[in-house]
Amino acid sequence: MAPRPPEQARPQGTPVRAPHGPGAPGAPRSPGDPVTAYLQEQAAAFLRALRARRESGTSAPETEAAVHALRGAAHRVEATLHTFRPLLEAEWAEHLQGELNWLSAVLGSEYACAHRLGRLLGALRRLRDEEGARAAAVPAQGHPEGPLPMGAARAGALLDRQLTLARNRAHSAALDALGSARFHAVADAVAVLASEVPYRRGASPYDPEVVGVLASLTSHRLADAIAALPLDRAGAPYNAEASALGSAAPGGEPQDAPWHRVRGLLRVRVYAAEALGAAPEARTAPGARALDRHREAADAATAAAAAARTPRIAPPTAYALGVLHAVQRQEVEAARHTFQRVWREAVRV
Amino acid sequence: MAPRPPEQARPQGTPVRAPHGPGAPGAPRSPGDPVTAYLQEQAAAFLRALRARRESGTSAPETEAAVHALRGAAHRVEATLHTFRPLLEAEWAEHLQGELNWLSAVLGSEYACAHRLGRLLGALRRLRDEEGARAAAVPAQGHPEGPLPMGAARAGALLDRQLTLARNRAHSAALDALGSARFHAVADAVAVLASEVPYRRGASPYDPEVVGVLASLTSHRLADAIAALPLDRAGAPYNAEASALGSAAPGGEPQDAPWHRVRGLLRVRVYAAEALGAAPEARTAPGARALDRHREAADAATAAAAAARTPRIAPPTAYALGVLHAVQRQEVEAARHTFQRVWREAVRV
Repeated sequence: MAPRPPEQARPQGTPVRAPHGPGAPGAPRSPGDPVTAYLQEQAAAFLRALRARRESGTSAPETEAAVHALRGAAHRVEATLHTFRPLLEAEWAEHLQGELNWLSAVLGSEYACAHRLGRLLGALRRLRDEEGARAAAVPAQGHPEGPLPMGAARAGALLDRQLTLARNRAHSAALDALGSARFHAVADAVAVLASEVPYRRGASPYDPEVVGVLASLTSHRLADAIAALPLDRAGAPYNAEASALGSAAPGGEPQDAPWHRVRGLLRVRVYAAEALGAAPEARTAPGARALDRHREAADAATAAAAAARTPRIAPPTAYALGVLHAVQRQEVEAARHTFQRVWREAVRV
Repeated sequence: MAPRPPEQARPQGTPVRAPHGPGAPGAPRSPGDPVTAYLQEQAAAFLRALRARRESGTSAPETEAAVHALRGAAHRVEATLHTFRPLLEAEWAEHLQGELNWLSAVLGSEYACAHRLGRLLGALRRLRDEEGARAAAVPAQGHPEGPLPMGAARAGALLDRQLTLARNRAHSAALDALGSARFHAVADAVAVLASEVPYRRGASPYDPEVVGVLASLTSHRLADAIAALPLDRAGAPYNAEASALGSAAPGGEPQDAPWHRVRGLLRVRVYAAEALGAAPEARTAPGARALDRHREAADAATAAAAAARTPRIAPPTAYALGVLHAVQRQEVEAARHTFQRVWREAVRV
């Protein structure tokens, strides 16, 4: 699908303005105006990934790689619009941010389901291996096929069914989204961005000081969010702070939200540094990985609790799901412990 | 019940021999022969506690205190017979050790059930409080009375029923035991001990070197048992080594046995030092407490898994018991982590 001309792509009330800095798609990075250059680079990467996604046909690995690239570019554009919002057409930027978030959520969910299932089945396998070892150790009493190991097998089958179904639904939803007028509008807006960035009248994206101040605000926001975390408690191992029965709330355990927020702000700061051509901050990468693990374990725990709400499951299945939920919540606690350690090491440096 | 004369108390084939060291009950501690003095002290303490238990009547606290003192003396006599076995009538000592172990197990089980129930209900309460906090945080979505919190309430009721029943059975078993001929024989054997310790012909309990060597063997046995523990793995928090589905084996998880063994050897060494009048080793006390916690959490996890095997329980109940089992196994892992830390600190001193 060819991007429509800019006129139709822009929301009402956001007149075109001649871009500052190089405007041609794929133009070489201009040291004078890093924000424009970065936005245009990422917009171009978005359009390339979109083409790759269309051309990947039935090759699952190619499709996944293309979607990964598409989401990466979407995250970067979204984060840059967020960081440099004061320079941009506010309404236009806010709208596009929302649309990019919608898109990467829709496209990512299919793969998130697959990874969640892998994590949960892996955890069940480890529990059953331990069970098997135990049974081998005491053949007389091990009852390797006792009710609880049976429950673990059934819990695995149940999670497989539910998360495979969710994955297939997410796959169709992604296909529908990519064919929707809403998506075409997003693609067009990104195409506009690749050729011309709608700055606010009087904005000075070429002023290194203004740009530097806006970028540095991401560090301040991150520092505030981290200051709000219970890092001291997370520093004491086995504090049981993350343990829970299993939230029925769509967002999972509310206690996880401040940690997810820090994860997001870390990413925004990385992209802001990227935009200014700064070297990637190697020292904060371990913290980011710990928070990725925090997020995955939290989502896996929520999936285990959701499976336990399935009507008419056998008690041993429910029991195994309870064990699984608690084990994933301990992973959440462990990830917080790792984050506080690597983060404190990083800032001590 | 008055102790019968020694003749009837001793098993066949263990002729009485004149004790070395002071033989009269309640005799002052003899520096020349600490083993005899200690055995007689503890035997006297055993008989005093027995009297206190009989006289405590219906006062639960007094009864518990008396049973506690009785088991303390039994443990000390048993450990001393074990440590100094080469000096003693082997057959007699081995028999009495077995009987003292039987007795303290029978008398302790009632209180163990009560403490186990308290631990499990406390853990459930913490999980439900977290649930309540969550629900309050998101009243719209919290579903505070959703299936899983309901399950936690029912799991608490189920554990209350099962462990209270077990406690009452243990109580009657203790009463039966105290009225049994088997118990009278134990009491008589301890009464003999209070007046005269049956040493092996030619044994030299008064030889400080011999006694010192035997006592030091307890430290070697302990060191070997600790060397066999996976302390390095326990040193890495959140190693998930203790996580399990829930053993149906009577002894609980076989992986816990080496830790329970160290717990026992620590106690034996403490009593050996006590016997020689050495100052109590304050530096190993934290390790001993960590292994007590390890034992309690392991037993509580086994009780949760056993409750989950109850026929016809509701799935949310089974789910909550699964969470509870995993949380107690995390306590087991945490206790191992604490043990390796305090132990390594202790030996570093």
